[in-house]
Amino acid sequence: MAKLGEALTEVLIPLAAVIGIGFAVLQWILVSRIRLSSGPVEKNGRPENLVGGEPEEEEEEGVDGPASVTKCAEIQSAISIGATSFLITEYKYLAVFMVIFGVIIFLFLGSVKGFSKDSQPCTYSKDRMCKPALANAAFSTLAFLLGSLTSVLSGFLGMKIATYANARTTVEARKGVGRAFIAAFRSGAVMGFLLAANGLLVLYISINLFKIYYGDDWEGLYESITGYGLGGSSMALFGRVGGGIYTKAADVGADLVGKVERNIPEDDPRNPAVIADNVGDNVGDIAGMGSDLFGSYAESSCAALFVGSISSFGINHDFSAMSYPLLISSMGIIVCLFTTLVATDFFEIKSVKQIEPSLKWQLVISTVLMTGGIAIVSFVALPSKFTLFNFGEDKTVKNWHLFFCVSVGLWAGLIIGYVTEYFTSNAYGPVQAVADSCRTGAATNVIFGLALGYKSVIVPIFAIAVAIYVSFSLASMYGIAVAALGMLSTIATGLSIDAYGPISDNAGGIAEMAGMSRKIRERTDALDSAGNTTAAIGKGFAIGSAALVSLALFGAFVSRAGIDFVNVLSPKVFIGLMVGAMLPYWFSAMTMRSVGSAALKMVEEVRRQFNTIPGLMEGTTKPDYATCVKISTDASLRKMIPPGALVMLTPLIAGTFFGVETLAGVLAGALVSGVQVAISASNTGGAWDNAKKYIEAGVSEHAKALGPKGSDPHKAAVVGDTIGDPLKDTSGPSLNILVKLMAVESLVLAPFFAAHGGLLFKWFR
Amino acid sequence: MAKLGEALTEVLIPLAAVIGIGFAVLQWILVSRIRLSSGPVEKNGRPENLVGGEPEEEEEEGVDGPASVTKCAEIQSAISIGATSFLITEYKYLAVFMVIFGVIIFLFLGSVKGFSKDSQPCTYSKDRMCKPALANAAFSTLAFLLGSLTSVLSGFLGMKIATYANARTTVEARKGVGRAFIAAFRSGAVMGFLLAANGLLVLYISINLFKIYYGDDWEGLYESITGYGLGGSSMALFGRVGGGIYTKAADVGADLVGKVERNIPEDDPRNPAVIADNVGDNVGDIAGMGSDLFGSYAESSCAALFVGSISSFGINHDFSAMSYPLLISSMGIIVCLFTTLVATDFFEIKSVKQIEPSLKWQLVISTVLMTGGIAIVSFVALPSKFTLFNFGEDKTVKNWHLFFCVSVGLWAGLIIGYVTEYFTSNAYGPVQAVADSCRTGAATNVIFGLALGYKSVIVPIFAIAVAIYVSFSLASMYGIAVAALGMLSTIATGLSIDAYGPISDNAGGIAEMAGMSRKIRERTDALDSAGNTTAAIGKGFAIGSAALVSLALFGAFVSRAGIDFVNVLSPKVFIGLMVGAMLPYWFSAMTMRSVGSAALKMVEEVRRQFNTIPGLMEGTTKPDYATCVKISTDASLRKMIPPGALVMLTPLIAGTFFGVETLAGVLAGALVSGVQVAISASNTGGAWDNAKKYIEAGVSEHAKALGPKGSDPHKAAVVGDTIGDPLKDTSGPSLNILVKLMAVESLVLAPFFAAHGGLLFKWFR
Repeated sequence: MAKLGEALTEVLIPLAAVIGIGFAVLQWILVSRIRLSSGPVEKNGRPENLVGGEPEEEEEEGVDGPASVTKCAEIQSAISIGATSFLITEYKYLAVFMVIFGVIIFLFLGSVKGFSKDSQPCTYSKDRMCKPALANAAFSTLAFLLGSLTSVLSGFLGMKIATYANARTTVEARKGVGRAFIAAFRSGAVMGFLLAANGLLVLYISINLFKIYYGDDWEGLYESITGYGLGGSSMALFGRVGGGIYTKAADVGADLVGKVERNIPEDDPRNPAVIADNVGDNVGDIAGMGSDLFGSYAESSCAALFVGSISSFGINHDFSAMSYPLLISSMGIIVCLFTTLVATDFFEIKSVKQIEPSLKWQLVISTVLMTGGIAIVSFVALPSKFTLFNFGEDKTVKNWHLFFCVSVGLWAGLIIGYVTEYFTSNAYGPVQAVADSCRTGAATNVIFGLALGYKSVIVPIFAIAVAIYVSFSLASMYGIAVAALGMLSTIATGLSIDAYGPISDNAGGIAEMAGMSRKIRERTDALDSAGNTTAAIGKGFAIGSAALVSLALFGAFVSRAGIDFVNVLSPKVFIGLMVGAMLPYWFSAMTMRSVGSAALKMVEEVRRQFNTIPGLMEGTTKPDYATCVKISTDASLRKMIPPGALVMLTPLIAGTFFGVETLAGVLAGALVSGVQVAISASNTGGAWDNAKKYIEAGVSEHAKALGPKGSDPHKAAVVGDTIGDPLKDTSGPSLNILVKLMAVESLVLAPFFAAHGGLLFKWFR
Repeated sequence: MAKLGEALTEVLIPLAAVIGIGFAVLQWILVSRIRLSSGPVEKNGRPENLVGGEPEEEEEEGVDGPASVTKCAEIQSAISIGATSFLITEYKYLAVFMVIFGVIIFLFLGSVKGFSKDSQPCTYSKDRMCKPALANAAFSTLAFLLGSLTSVLSGFLGMKIATYANARTTVEARKGVGRAFIAAFRSGAVMGFLLAANGLLVLYISINLFKIYYGDDWEGLYESITGYGLGGSSMALFGRVGGGIYTKAADVGADLVGKVERNIPEDDPRNPAVIADNVGDNVGDIAGMGSDLFGSYAESSCAALFVGSISSFGINHDFSAMSYPLLISSMGIIVCLFTTLVATDFFEIKSVKQIEPSLKWQLVISTVLMTGGIAIVSFVALPSKFTLFNFGEDKTVKNWHLFFCVSVGLWAGLIIGYVTEYFTSNAYGPVQAVADSCRTGAATNVIFGLALGYKSVIVPIFAIAVAIYVSFSLASMYGIAVAALGMLSTIATGLSIDAYGPISDNAGGIAEMAGMSRKIRERTDALDSAGNTTAAIGKGFAIGSAALVSLALFGAFVSRAGIDFVNVLSPKVFIGLMVGAMLPYWFSAMTMRSVGSAALKMVEEVRRQFNTIPGLMEGTTKPDYATCVKISTDASLRKMIPPGALVMLTPLIAGTFFGVETLAGVLAGALVSGVQVAISASNTGGAWDNAKKYIEAGVSEHAKALGPKGSDPHKAAVVGDTIGDPLKDTSGPSLNILVKLMAVESLVLAPFFAAHGGLLFKWFR
């Protein structure tokens, strides 16, 4: 048995979650002290030791005075209202989906044993009796709804925090880059810790509540809990796709007319699409990403719990060992808390150059500390030796094996993060070569950019392969599941950094719209530029963890469907593999086209306004922001349905008509192909964005030779940037969810497919 | 036993090959009657009944008179000399590779039994004795060399024919579009029939010669013969990659400066890169494609023969049944011969509109006739019932099962061809939507084009999946192999149509360079435009057949390596799957970047010449064509090595260090991922090309609104076209070969990997 007692486990997990939530609230309070009123900016009432020293310089008067603060508050309120109204409309659609899919889950799982209310022998420990299949159906549906609501809540809270923090960051930028950084970073931390702790807490409470009914039937308990992951991820899919279409339709539309045709700066208030663009950052990048990473976290926890429940410590009811995945996450929250303090309190950002290293150090510090944390948890929570389920046979595993599994996931994440940075930051060769290719126009820029994206796949795939091999060999599918959890264990820090990016981006937009001075914009630009790179790193993490999570879910599905091997040499499996590998392309075709056609509409509307509203270019009349918001909203709500349906229906159709073997092929195919498409799309897009920024910033001799803004190479770079938008912010990141979601859906519905699936082959036989 | 006697089989196969070669020679004679001298154009001496009626109109005088014919001859000679000299240089490199790789094959296979010269018990019929492993090593190496030489010969002959025919097509265009069509199509047929018949004949002769040594040991005989496929495909890889880089570096470079910057037409003689561009068509599209399809043909025959040799009719030494794959190909030559006559003699092309339907009918006619041909061969050559090897167990199969296997491959090819046409021809919605997106610039054009390519993957993948399922279920791996052969059975017609395209393209280029009248150019443009669509169809065929071929080779490899199942749930297999799925990206990154950087150099050189050579723009001075040829040559020879090494070394490394299971994973991963990348890359590129042509031609109101040449939408379309060049002519088609080649290499070296592979896992154990 584990060294850690059951009682202590029952205390430690909720304690960590509560500490995380408390820390988030503390950060929120600190951010909320930044006043957004037109009175003189407060200088007292802030605990200086937490902020990082004295303000570097006094506030400026004039353009950045109280009037501009009022303007910031107005713009912030417009963005917040727009984002809230979009999300609420989106959630209405999602509520309909939740109900329909909840009914599907209940009917499919209930029909496994013909809606019988009788207890049944357990699947894995056949001498015991388990709860009826109907109960599992009901609780799976309940878990699905809980997961959905938590996911929606995560996205919504994230958006609220971000739209609360953006203008405050702008206002703080008047006092120096350090202050602005702290404001943006703290706000990111609010989101990071709230999501991580909230996800853990809801899962923990659900398990304990379900246990009241399930009692000794842990098989049924953890089977039902997998619905939580499905709920989390399905909301994330719509959030990512809908939000992604919204934000990129606005962004591409605004850029094509504003920057390319009218030659006005980004975020210029004369651009009719500018509010839609800023709203988009919050609903796409923030709310979408929040839901996405919450989904990954929920799924990897569920996969680990499910595989654990059919292993020796599950069958022996060792609660501490069973809670290993949750304890890892708890430890992660504590480790991230210390890591955050390093950025906000132990060190102080004094110049622009320190921003990016400071963010990158966050990743290194959290990874190093967490390695120690994993060791502690592994040694106290796990028995020194136990057996794990390994597709029909038992595998003997030692506790230090699991330490390696979790750690290899964690460190693979760091490697992926750093490789992503290398390929997308303009401090290194690859992006500079892309920028250089703009000399001969947009075509070569695109050719080089695509090649860069393809190349950037190599090292991450090897890193994932090593992580898979090590964890798979040491601890079978359980190893994979906890490796995924390892990669996500520092999620609070990862999300803090991720959320920091769009907040800084918005802060810059608000500064531009409020007409603040060049100095302020330079500071927010510096924050934003660092945010761009960290956003790419965050996407790398999201993809890497998605790969591991979906492999773990795939393994859990296969176990639950009762297949002992998935043979590529079986035609049923092979055609699944082939079609599965095609799905990411089908999905990308839909999302890319949706962004393209919504952007076309946006361009026409923006052009129309510039051509028909007198005084718009001169800045004497206000544009009609609302119509642009409406175009983005309509496009995203309408166009998120087909890709969503593709992802949600594929496992249903494949499982019901072709059976579990073909479905297993589809999942494996989608996984191995989707990861490549996702990584290359994200990195190509990120590289184009930063190649453009490289030319604009003109820091080196080489960059100066390509610039300035408006030069032919710069125009070519803008074309690349625009193409990259849907790749990096719509298709790429949504593919993570495609891969994970199909796997978790298959896992949840596996009992049905195993019992009644493969109709087509049955008819023909 | 089969109805067809052994003696008759021994006669029929070489007879069909000889008929094919004779037909090719006849076509050659007919083409060669078109005189390229400055004397008056001959009107007699041509058998009118074979040419299709009287010439439509008399030749024009003036610009298209004898002087221009002399000019055509000069240009042709320049192109021919350039292409010949490039290919000979390329073949010198390849000779080195052939020797090195021949030694590797010999050493690897020889070491399987420690270079022992003793006979050994056979692998599949254990009661017999087979020839020593050393003999297999020697004969495999010999077969490899034979395959290499045949492939090189195929490419070289194709290039010679094409450079012989291009100017003749131009000259014939003076007499009407029908005459020009016949000239181009006949020349294509020379290549198509020569390649198909030659490939069959060399294979047939090799089998018979090898039999002198092997006698009753058919296992060893057909094992060694697989080297023929490896030789064919490895030459094809370098041909495709080298030729692809050559042609696209020249094409992109010529277009970026000539069309975009200097606003001079395509193929204008003032453009310094114009000769390199036209040479490129012949070495890339013609020689590369010839080697590629020959490789596919050789590999699918070898895969079918190998799997057949370990089946009941192989073990029982039923030579007619054993020769079923060769008989299918023989029937294909005869069927294609009739099909060709339909285009050249039974019907007559009278107007431009008839060209494309005429080419498309070729595919339909050959497919319908061939279905009957397959039925005949299946019923006479096969016993009514026999058993096939199915991964360790026997599978009972009837002769009509194999009829379905071959036919499903044949018809899947037709479906893929037509879907490809739908997505790449500007007669349909998808390309028109891409053209329409040019209204808002290059960025939306690229977004829509990429989405189109992704979407175009869906139906072909389903068609391939159905073909795989049907043939796999009916006749296991043998079914897949003959399905691939079915798709390739009409290769003579397919190649005729494929070769027709670049010949017409060159003819147009020569007309432009020789300063011929607008009328002539319109006719050659019409030929070329039809050729563009058929080229896309040809690529579809090449990819579809590559998918089937490599699956068949994969199955043969697995059988020969002694694995009975490839379990995705084994970590060794899964990491292979993951890394394999990544290889097409790595490969594309290399080839795309090579084209990009070679094009950059070309652009600089062309710009330099325009800026420094006085009188060049005015047409009074000749540009320095040779420097541009040299840039293309150097780039392609240097840059074809890394992607070639990636493909050739991966199976060696994976097999030697990680073992057959990981290698099987790599092959499956590369297959399912590579097919998607290849189809989407080819179709995206084809769509951009034709979207540009759609705007240029201005046939509909919609197209006119986007044009004319030089308008903003047209400029955006040119950017797309340029990006598409390396996608559709370098990366995309090379990926077929990547997928096939890794599989055939694994098959040939399987005995070594099975005996000594997996060193890394052995060390760690």
